[in-house]
Amino acid sequence: MNSLLLNCDIGESFGAWTMGLDAEVMPFIDCANIACGFHASDPGTMRKTVALAVEHGVRIGAHTAYQDLVGFGRRSMDCTPQEVEDLMLYQIGALEGICRSQDSHVSYVKPHGALYQDMMRKPATLRAVMSAVAKYNRHLPLMLMCTRDNSQFQALGDEYGLTLWFEAFADRAYDAEGFLVSRKLPDAVHHDSEIIVDQAVTLARGETLVASDGSALLLRAQTLCVHGDNASSVAAVKRIRQAFDTLDQA
Amino acid sequence: MNSLLLNCDIGESFGAWTMGLDAEVMPFIDCANIACGFHASDPGTMRKTVALAVEHGVRIGAHTAYQDLVGFGRRSMDCTPQEVEDLMLYQIGALEGICRSQDSHVSYVKPHGALYQDMMRKPATLRAVMSAVAKYNRHLPLMLMCTRDNSQFQALGDEYGLTLWFEAFADRAYDAEGFLVSRKLPDAVHHDSEIIVDQAVTLARGETLVASDGSALLLRAQTLCVHGDNASSVAAVKRIRQAFDTLDQA
Amino acid sequence: MNSLLLNCDIGESFGAWTMGLDAEVMPFIDCANIACGFHASDPGTMRKTVALAVEHGVRIGAHTAYQDLVGFGRRSMDCTPQEVEDLMLYQIGALEGICRSQDSHVSYVKPHGALYQDMMRKPATLRAVMSAVAKYNRHLPLMLMCTRDNSQFQALGDEYGLTLWFEAFADRAYDAEGFLVSRKLPDAVHHDSEIIVDQAVTLARGETLVASDGSALLLRAQTLCVHGDNASSVAAVKRIRQAFDTLDQA
Amino acid sequence: MNSLLLNCDIGESFGAWTMGLDAEVMPFIDCANIACGFHASDPGTMRKTVALAVEHGVRIGAHTAYQDLVGFGRRSMDCTPQEVEDLMLYQIGALEGICRSQDSHVSYVKPHGALYQDMMRKPATLRAVMSAVAKYNRHLPLMLMCTRDNSQFQALGDEYGLTLWFEAFADRAYDAEGFLVSRKLPDAVHHDSEIIVDQAVTLARGETLVASDGSALLLRAQTLCVHGDNASSVAAVKRIRQAFDTLDQA
Repeated sequence: MNSLLLNCDIGESFGAWTMGLDAEVMPFIDCANIACGFHASDPGTMRKTVALAVEHGVRIGAHTAYQDLVGFGRRSMDCTPQEVEDLMLYQIGALEGICRSQDSHVSYVKPHGALYQDMMRKPATLRAVMSAVAKYNRHLPLMLMCTRDNSQFQALGDEYGLTLWFEAFADRAYDAEGFLVSRKLPDAVHHDSEIIVDQAVTLARGETLVASDGSALLLRAQTLCVHGDNASSVAAVKRIRQAFDTLDQA
Repeated sequence: MNSLLLNCDIGESFGAWTMGLDAEVMPFIDCANIACGFHASDPGTMRKTVALAVEHGVRIGAHTAYQDLVGFGRRSMDCTPQEVEDLMLYQIGALEGICRSQDSHVSYVKPHGALYQDMMRKPATLRAVMSAVAKYNRHLPLMLMCTRDNSQFQALGDEYGLTLWFEAFADRAYDAEGFLVSRKLPDAVHHDSEIIVDQAVTLARGETLVASDGSALLLRAQTLCVHGDNASSVAAVKRIRQAFDTLDQA
Repeated sequence: MNSLLLNCDIGESFGAWTMGLDAEVMPFIDCANIACGFHASDPGTMRKTVALAVEHGVRIGAHTAYQDLVGFGRRSMDCTPQEVEDLMLYQIGALEGICRSQDSHVSYVKPHGALYQDMMRKPATLRAVMSAVAKYNRHLPLMLMCTRDNSQFQALGDEYGLTLWFEAFADRAYDAEGFLVSRKLPDAVHHDSEIIVDQAVTLARGETLVASDGSALLLRAQTLCVHGDNASSVAAVKRIRQAFDTLDQA
Repeated sequence: MNSLLLNCDIGESFGAWTMGLDAEVMPFIDCANIACGFHASDPGTMRKTVALAVEHGVRIGAHTAYQDLVGFGRRSMDCTPQEVEDLMLYQIGALEGICRSQDSHVSYVKPHGALYQDMMRKPATLRAVMSAVAKYNRHLPLMLMCTRDNSQFQALGDEYGLTLWFEAFADRAYDAEGFLVSRKLPDAVHHDSEIIVDQAVTLARGETLVASDGSALLLRAQTLCVHGDNASSVAAVKRIRQAFDTLDQA
């Protein structure tokens, strides 16, 4: 059986400012969502991040965002679909430029922050994102949020000829429709690493989770989003990696 | 015989601000030096500029610059060679991303403004520029300033395995060494279109110019830098194009 | 009687890019809404714009905006009220810094573009804007859009102890509630200068306009927004100024 | 006797990125050099930093810089004196805008990084800096590097009617002329806190240091630059504060 690909936001330092434990988490992940200079990072940080990914044989993804360094790409901007398509192409290309100098390449795309949220709730934004990836290279998978019913997203992906990688979370509670429980509610985020690893393994086995209303929830995901922000999240990634290695060898 | 390639800075609008008569000059040039968002332009402007170049079958060059929109890339910044290499790769890649969406590609590189000046006078900067192009794609020609003796530049280009395109100017006076006469001196810039076209043709024929001290100056250039800033510069480009067409048919 | 103050967006050039006929329109206006570097302008442009305003004895207003040069501040950004308050204070202060060097000062505030629109439709944004002005200097008037019923805005202004200057437009059609007819509809914008000047005079006399549904509309405005974008809008400003001078002498 | 004012770079976080132990070091310093958004910081960070300074009764200084977030203002930019003057005024004003909302004000100015270095070695840049402060408010002291002979700087300051605060370092070795020994040389930086505190006290007492060539060096400084980057530098600041408190009570 194939376990889920572990994807992680990475390369989010900027100039003199550092963020994230990139070197610590890189050995344990499959897919590095590398910031492209619009919400974080700069050409030098991108070079170092790509080098780290190459060193560990990790797939490189373009982590594209609205142009908003001060807001870290977390503030929605009222961009037109054309503007979204353009900023996607610019950022994917910029990362590819850095990759080429290291005999590497961009191998998937994952929008970041507010652009990711907007893509999931506004069809026009999602179409713009898909159009950009399709025009750049339709063989690049696009990461989206996995919910109970991915069929509408899949249909749109098919229209653009794209491979979609739906991502799930091991540290978040889900509602019955497979949407993340709002962080404003209690128990939205799992902090117990035992629970996190269990949810990761359940997702990887293709088994049902228990949704927030007690119902069974099946999420058909290809990838799991993990975090390298701090020591505790890195420790969780290591445990998930070990559990997945065990699964893969079974 | 082959006349000189006409290269022109283009796509230097930014957001709501327009600059240059791009649509007017594009039909008459061979090479469009397209701004990449660091001294001018933005993803949307780049898309429109690439579309215009594609429409007219004009070669697309990455016009790379220091990151300084307020200063239009004309202010030297004390960047390390590594920083120069990184910003070159980022910008070339970003433009290529836009090009790919239009089934086009970057086909040469020309640094802009202060980066161009620094490259011509600081070997470490020139090496960084060359290293970036070589790592990105050593088949992309790099444009440099043509002087009387290009041998040192050529030797460095050979070291990096690069093709160099030396560029000359039709509207500027040269000194005996083949450097541009400073704009602070009288007669540094030719305003008479007759003189401009004559100098272009002389350069294209591989004949000698008269330097500012009266000596004969031979410039071995591959390309001529022309301008689309205003109606009069566009008119000069048209006349040069006609003269070159006549040369090519001869 | 007192006619309306003529306010105009001005100083919206940026670095090497120019926009607007500032020098042409400045002699005819009362209030210059000067860009503060977030949607347009830069410290040098601000210095020159302030100098022009001082030369003509024109009141200087801080034209504050979301931080979005590429989008010219026209794209709404999902900023928190705290973020809005902070960016207002930063920009008002920055303009005041430039003014102080010319023995001048900021004498009112007018949000720009998407921030202006958001302020008019989101109470939390309007409160943030008002809080910023009140904390900076509650004696600075704040410009808002005039509608048929300004009472809610006035009540909020009173709460913050602020003077509000409601602005009307001479070149736009109004609906019965005193909102601008959408530009997407026909006849939303007046192009005939006769009509524009008539509407300006009607507003200045405190008389009723004819709304788009034919009803009478009374707008109690203190200021009229005029434009210096091009020769024709500047010509309209001159005619309005002449008409107002005649009114004032009557 | 009066000991030296302790000044510290502070408020150098940016958006989601944090830098420096501002809250830890603020209680022990006299003067907070607060970043103004050009090399670091943003309106929200500035608000929080000003609040912290106000809470501890610390003087607020405008830490003005070249516009270069990626390079943290450490890369020299080839700005004209006019550009330097303009960017100084913009940044001082912006910080003052934030201060006014907290009933506080900017009480001195210290250029940052490359602008500071350029000011010390290029008279035209220094004049531009001084002109900006003089035009903004000539009662604001300007911080400069203290060397053995400050007379030329003092003469220029007198010309602009400015108060100069010369700053010395406790953790750096000096050469016989009172310039900092290059960091590239051994023993350029003191790491032993005993030595650091001793040098601070020696400077505060107005006694001579031993220069790198063994000669006696008298530095007439008004302020000492300290650092809040990490726990060890904060610990050194506490010890210097204690030593100065003892001096002041003596």
